[in-house]
Amino acid sequence: MNARAQTPEQLEQERRVRESHGHLVIIGGHEDRKHDMQILSRFVELSGGNDAKIVVISAASSVADQMWEMYDRAFGELGVRERVHLHLASRQCANDQQHIKDILDATGIFMTGGDQKRLLAIIGGTALDSAMHAALKLRGACIGGTSAGASAMSGHMLAQGRAELHPEKGSVSLGAGLGFLHKVVIDQHFSERQRLSRLLSVVAQNPYLQGIGIDEDTALIVERGVGIEVLGEGAVTIVDGRNMSTNIAEIPDRETPELIDVRLHLLPAGSKYRLPDGDNVPVEHRIPSSLLEFLENVTKRTQIS
Amino acid sequence: MNARAQTPEQLEQERRVRESHGHLVIIGGHEDRKHDMQILSRFVELSGGNDAKIVVISAASSVADQMWEMYDRAFGELGVRERVHLHLASRQCANDQQHIKDILDATGIFMTGGDQKRLLAIIGGTALDSAMHAALKLRGACIGGTSAGASAMSGHMLAQGRAELHPEKGSVSLGAGLGFLHKVVIDQHFSERQRLSRLLSVVAQNPYLQGIGIDEDTALIVERGVGIEVLGEGAVTIVDGRNMSTNIAEIPDRETPELIDVRLHLLPAGSKYRLPDGDNVPVEHRIPSSLLEFLENVTKRTQIS
Repeated sequence: MNARAQTPEQLEQERRVRESHGHLVIIGGHEDRKHDMQILSRFVELSGGNDAKIVVISAASSVADQMWEMYDRAFGELGVRERVHLHLASRQCANDQQHIKDILDATGIFMTGGDQKRLLAIIGGTALDSAMHAALKLRGACIGGTSAGASAMSGHMLAQGRAELHPEKGSVSLGAGLGFLHKVVIDQHFSERQRLSRLLSVVAQNPYLQGIGIDEDTALIVERGVGIEVLGEGAVTIVDGRNMSTNIAEIPDRETPELIDVRLHLLPAGSKYRLPDGDNVPVEHRIPSSLLEFLENVTKRTQIS
Repeated sequence: MNARAQTPEQLEQERRVRESHGHLVIIGGHEDRKHDMQILSRFVELSGGNDAKIVVISAASSVADQMWEMYDRAFGELGVRERVHLHLASRQCANDQQHIKDILDATGIFMTGGDQKRLLAIIGGTALDSAMHAALKLRGACIGGTSAGASAMSGHMLAQGRAELHPEKGSVSLGAGLGFLHKVVIDQHFSERQRLSRLLSVVAQNPYLQGIGIDEDTALIVERGVGIEVLGEGAVTIVDGRNMSTNIAEIPDRETPELIDVRLHLLPAGSKYRLPDGDNVPVEHRIPSSLLEFLENVTKRTQIS
């Protein structure tokens, strides 16, 4: 037995994490906020509909009040009465007790766009960060993020990088993200800003990370323990370099690596995949194994670390 | 025995095809024609250098004389004394005996850019088309083509298609190309015009064709029976959907298909791969199997059909 002795509280927490669902709504930026609001509407529904308490974290943005106004109006139009803006100007704010309480009460937490490095510099490792994990994992709250707020969700975060014509060694830098997902890296505005080369640059250098590219007005929705769905106008692209061959270790910075056997999946809006219930799935409904591995990874009910 | 009885001439021809090399220089457009001329210079070298007889086929272009002027100057600067313009205004011209003789004498045949449909409408299936195959396959001549002249080289030719943000069912149409290569489809100006979606559209609908995307000022050089090389400024991208799962048969036209397990290879300039001599290749020099299949296919010494 290599398990450490656990307190009854720890065991109870682990049980709750195993059983709760919780959703991530990971949006590629420029989601519609005025017309059909398909994605925001789903975020509200997954947060409890009219009874939702939605907290907006605008810390990624340097125009936080404008961000708040925009989402306050949108969520109001979608029937949400309880709407709270967390204006986090510093790490001190992200340890403020009232803010923590708002997160612990929230059924939906939404992170706006801006700069993911700024967002992490303010909330990464704070009490508010921990409270978000507790909300998702213990109570099954819904966490949404768009653009920078989407990239921030993974453990390894695409911090910045050029999107050149070709993948390039050393052209992209990663940072430490919020860690709601592991072994992936998320890019947004994906097809619109032609970012496949940038995502391939990440995967070439970091082959155990699977790259997730999300288009504008498109969301990858993850239900922990259950499955995934693509919603909106575009598609989600997944690049998987775990079995590739590459010469990236041998070439100088700024050069284009040879990449052989990168796997690419394109999941258009409307795609839905559930973890199989058992082994008796008819062949025509079986999920191809490489996508199944992706699905198992992103839906995994990770514990609070 | 299912072999047909063959005449001594046929057997001799087959032997020559099996033993001759012959190169294809497949250029993604906008190759340098004024400064280092790296690609054109290699084309000249593979055509015999100063002793080359180079024939330029400008039939893809509606400004044939301007094309000829440009390449006449470039090949002249590269030291080629014998330079011939085949001005092919119609299929009648492509059956003209003097033109056929020029092809049969040529050590290098170069097809300019323009519109590959126009090129095929004029030379496809003519005596000149057959003469080009004989030049390549019996005498080991070098055949070069840029842009439209590159796309025209495969048996299934990318004729036209939108390059949208995402792959789309029914967005690309194929035509019958010259057939120097089989089971592939070639696109050009690849990274510069962001044509991955268009190439994926082809592969999604035609999964036994492997897609080859060639960047500007970049060439895929094929030596029949020997190997391939990428030369120039960009890269060659290969997309292989032979093992993919897709719903393309079930969706309406213009929709984006689900694509799972497309394999992607990126071969930057400088990449060289030779067919292995035997089975005793050390593991670090072995070519990954999916690239080896590609290599075996494109270097195959196909007979004259």
